[in-house]
Amino acid sequence: MNKHADPAETLKAALAEAARLTDQTLDALLPPPSGLHARVQEAMRYAIFAGGKRLRPFLVLASAALFDAPRNRALRVAAAIEALHTYSLVHDDLPCMDDDDLRRGQPTTHKKFDEATAVLAGDALLTLAFEILAHPDTHPSAEVRCQLVALLARAGGSEGMIGGQMMDIDAPNRSHTADEVILLQRMKTGALFEFACEAGAILAERGAEDRERLKAYARDFGLAFQITDDLIDVTSSAEAAGKAVGKDQDQGKATLVSIHGVQGAQAQAETLAQSAADTVAVYGVVAEPLKALPFYLIGRET
Amino acid sequence: MNKHADPAETLKAALAEAARLTDQTLDALLPPPSGLHARVQEAMRYAIFAGGKRLRPFLVLASAALFDAPRNRALRVAAAIEALHTYSLVHDDLPCMDDDDLRRGQPTTHKKFDEATAVLAGDALLTLAFEILAHPDTHPSAEVRCQLVALLARAGGSEGMIGGQMMDIDAPNRSHTADEVILLQRMKTGALFEFACEAGAILAERGAEDRERLKAYARDFGLAFQITDDLIDVTSSAEAAGKAVGKDQDQGKATLVSIHGVQGAQAQAETLAQSAADTVAVYGVVAEPLKALPFYLIGRET
Repeated sequence: MNKHADPAETLKAALAEAARLTDQTLDALLPPPSGLHARVQEAMRYAIFAGGKRLRPFLVLASAALFDAPRNRALRVAAAIEALHTYSLVHDDLPCMDDDDLRRGQPTTHKKFDEATAVLAGDALLTLAFEILAHPDTHPSAEVRCQLVALLARAGGSEGMIGGQMMDIDAPNRSHTADEVILLQRMKTGALFEFACEAGAILAERGAEDRERLKAYARDFGLAFQITDDLIDVTSSAEAAGKAVGKDQDQGKATLVSIHGVQGAQAQAETLAQSAADTVAVYGVVAEPLKALPFYLIGRET
Repeated sequence: MNKHADPAETLKAALAEAARLTDQTLDALLPPPSGLHARVQEAMRYAIFAGGKRLRPFLVLASAALFDAPRNRALRVAAAIEALHTYSLVHDDLPCMDDDDLRRGQPTTHKKFDEATAVLAGDALLTLAFEILAHPDTHPSAEVRCQLVALLARAGGSEGMIGGQMMDIDAPNRSHTADEVILLQRMKTGALFEFACEAGAILAERGAEDRERLKAYARDFGLAFQITDDLIDVTSSAEAAGKAVGKDQDQGKATLVSIHGVQGAQAQAETLAQSAADTVAVYGVVAEPLKALPFYLIGRET
């Protein structure tokens, strides 16, 4: 690594490299479309390779790198979490949920295929995530693999991501307080970020101190990320964002932006980014990507 | 066990007892509805406790009993497989899939709640299945738990149940041969039956011979069961079946009944039931429930 390089440029290159390796891994792990059921496997691949920042895979790789955990193992966990994240997008886009026609500037899976295929492709991606984690290639210790399965299931389940989505769907019917908005986001998107960061420590079989530290990083990072998402929803155009915007406002949903205002939310995101960076500073130079990431992301426009 | 009792009555009692214990286990393992996301957990419970024969749990318990595997462990696997089976029913009933309003004589989950909640409840039940299996209470050996996770994921994935459902949805657009119908059923319903039966041997850490034998039993059993389902679809009334009937015919779907006729299909189901019973006869008296089950089920009317 060139010490004199622009940190933002170094991070961008690291993000691109993580995305490339994750895509390679996903390509090898996704079933090749075949037989009379090929359509569902084509839809799985369409959803996975429709773009995306591969942010959760990056967090897995960066946290695993803190402890020198082998990258080929971290890549399998990265693929599993991206499969689970992608399933959640496919189902959230369905007409009965958020009813989105575009995702990352492309037709959503149910628009490209059909609703039934999108439901099944999502189900299959969720299922595949656990198959990947349980396989011996993910870690020689079955105890470690079981921990990963159990923690991903909790993070993605009805007390985590799915519960958050349920709260979000019900949101227009309730007026959420700031604390409730934070809880919703911690469940809907934060739980998966926490798993991604903790996974690096689990792969390296580190103890509670490292695991808790990485989860604390993920909590601050995740909330900063979500606030930025909400800011983009308010301030960006659909063309620039590659998806429908202004939906939160249209639906009267409470967000930290609607509660604290644009400037207040921006300040909060910056405070959270700094807190996240401070949390992992203890690991020294190897934590640079994790330190730089939140600042990079709160500066993004899409 | 009373040796002079009517075998069918003995089996009915064993089925009822397995269902009772499975429901007790599921009640303990399903998250209690709480917080602003309670709705999804209420829907999970509604779908799980809407009735059902608990056939897959019975198969797990009966196969585990062959090898004296502890029943509390088998019950956790039984609960996991029933959670996964139930998710598949909830999603299959959705308007974009089979569009069924009734299941076991009750409103389907999306009718009772709404479509978005049904999608999420299904997702959460699928996720919960893997969380249950990965937990140390399921088996002291993490290797065994990982095997169960990996095999259930394969059985329920795009090369198993989901692939079968994809074929089924596409069925009206194709004219299936008898071999294709068998492949479809083996994926759509057979894969999960195979897992249920093999799980008993896995819990007891038995080798390939026992595992293959139980899978062979499950294949014959599963096909006999499916043929009977198709016969009921042709010959029963909706009131008696507790769900819409005659749908295969209306949709022009090929089934073994439409290919071989009612009498031919009945004869085939009987041959398969006998073959299944013969396969497990080697285990002696402890295999009586598994031997009696296929004959009992092909004689049912709902």
